[in-house]
Amino acid sequence: MEIIGEKINTTRKDVQKAVRERDAAFIQELAQKQAEGGAAFLDVNSGLALYPEEEAEDFAWLVPLIQKTVDLPLCIDSGRPQPIEAALKLHRGKAMINSVNGDPAKMGEIFPLVKKYGCKVIALTSSREGGIPATSEERLKIAQTIATEAQKYGVPLGDIYFDPLVMALSTQHGNGTLFLETLRGIKKNLGEAKTVSGLSNISFGLPKRRLMNQVFLVLALGCGMDAAILDPTDKALMAMIRAGETLMGKDPFCAKYISAFREGRLDV
Amino acid sequence: MEIIGEKINTTRKDVQKAVRERDAAFIQELAQKQAEGGAAFLDVNSGLALYPEEEAEDFAWLVPLIQKTVDLPLCIDSGRPQPIEAALKLHRGKAMINSVNGDPAKMGEIFPLVKKYGCKVIALTSSREGGIPATSEERLKIAQTIATEAQKYGVPLGDIYFDPLVMALSTQHGNGTLFLETLRGIKKNLGEAKTVSGLSNISFGLPKRRLMNQVFLVLALGCGMDAAILDPTDKALMAMIRAGETLMGKDPFCAKYISAFREGRLDV
Repeated sequence: MEIIGEKINTTRKDVQKAVRERDAAFIQELAQKQAEGGAAFLDVNSGLALYPEEEAEDFAWLVPLIQKTVDLPLCIDSGRPQPIEAALKLHRGKAMINSVNGDPAKMGEIFPLVKKYGCKVIALTSSREGGIPATSEERLKIAQTIATEAQKYGVPLGDIYFDPLVMALSTQHGNGTLFLETLRGIKKNLGEAKTVSGLSNISFGLPKRRLMNQVFLVLALGCGMDAAILDPTDKALMAMIRAGETLMGKDPFCAKYISAFREGRLDV
Repeated sequence: MEIIGEKINTTRKDVQKAVRERDAAFIQELAQKQAEGGAAFLDVNSGLALYPEEEAEDFAWLVPLIQKTVDLPLCIDSGRPQPIEAALKLHRGKAMINSVNGDPAKMGEIFPLVKKYGCKVIALTSSREGGIPATSEERLKIAQTIATEAQKYGVPLGDIYFDPLVMALSTQHGNGTLFLETLRGIKKNLGEAKTVSGLSNISFGLPKRRLMNQVFLVLALGCGMDAAILDPTDKALMAMIRAGETLMGKDPFCAKYISAFREGRLDV
């Protein structure tokens, strides 16, 4: 499972402050720690910037700063195409864009960038008019629409990470199985397409969120989820992912599991 | 998920001693604690008795003692039909027999008891001649043979708990997925049949066994496992099962999860 580190996000107050004040050391430490924790990508979100120009400037500062610190590709997380392109221009290696969805206008903005810069892209199984559909079938239909549209731009299916979309279990007790069904459906029907999600919404409004998030991650891993947006410095969660991947047969001779043990990564 | 408490087992030295010395308080405490932890059945194994008569006497002491202490059905765990029947004669409620397998002689011993005493039964997907098959298909074939044979005795499929059989990941890194595939195959092809397993063999020979056992249990739960033989006094494991069942949509309004939280059962 590819881990996308979630911590460089300006919706977190301390990150917002660090970005506004251009506190390089703070950002570099966040990047370093997530890389050490096992991140394959780092999400970078500066969406609290007031204007697109300001967000583009933020990215122009953040992207080289982070890539100078860690040798990882970034996941450029923004609702605006201009700042995304500003980030991509400075990005080294194969970036990921977070995100496109089933909205034709959105696809028209994002897919040309995906193609031009040879990126990966996260695709939410929602649309502008219909919001987040209530059934797995409708979400799959949106995923199929996105896959078809991507093809027109020459974007390979294997570069698209579909997000089945997690909603809180506290509002509807079937939201967990709805997510897992959608995930399995995408894996089954969309060939090489990848799947990704942030999982913590599932536990919104419930106690012991950490427990629930951990268990949900393992269930998603069991259904073949390819990537997750989470906190790679959460040692317990990362240990469960390591154990889960080994259990899912993806670790010949359990070599990665045993290495993780020797490095103290399973001590939680 | 129905939990079968594993602790009253004479392969554990202290239990063996308590059974030999007829230490009622020790056994009663084991029973009480497992019931409080959330067991639906208690496994009772006196297999270290030297002779069948001795084992039958052990059961004749254990069964009423435990059922006087806790209001739970027992899972009579023995390789010998005579002691099993001695236990069933004294058992109150619907017992479970642990176990039958695909061996015709074994089925000929066990199914008449299952029918006569109206029990449930654990059925291992192995046979005398072939041992434990190396593929999911062969294990499924044995399960089907057992299901067909059970029908001849008038034993309902819903009373059979098939065990897909866990083998150590350390000997073959595909043993986890082999188990999960077999589990899914049984759920798909054998209608009302149940599934059960002890899971801890998976981590044999590996470090951090507790972590691996927990994650494997969640993966099995995600594939629809109906019951598990484990230690119900393991609070962390039981909390994960509670979270897992809620996530799998089996907990309207998350009521059981919230109750478990209020009762402190999720504090791990």
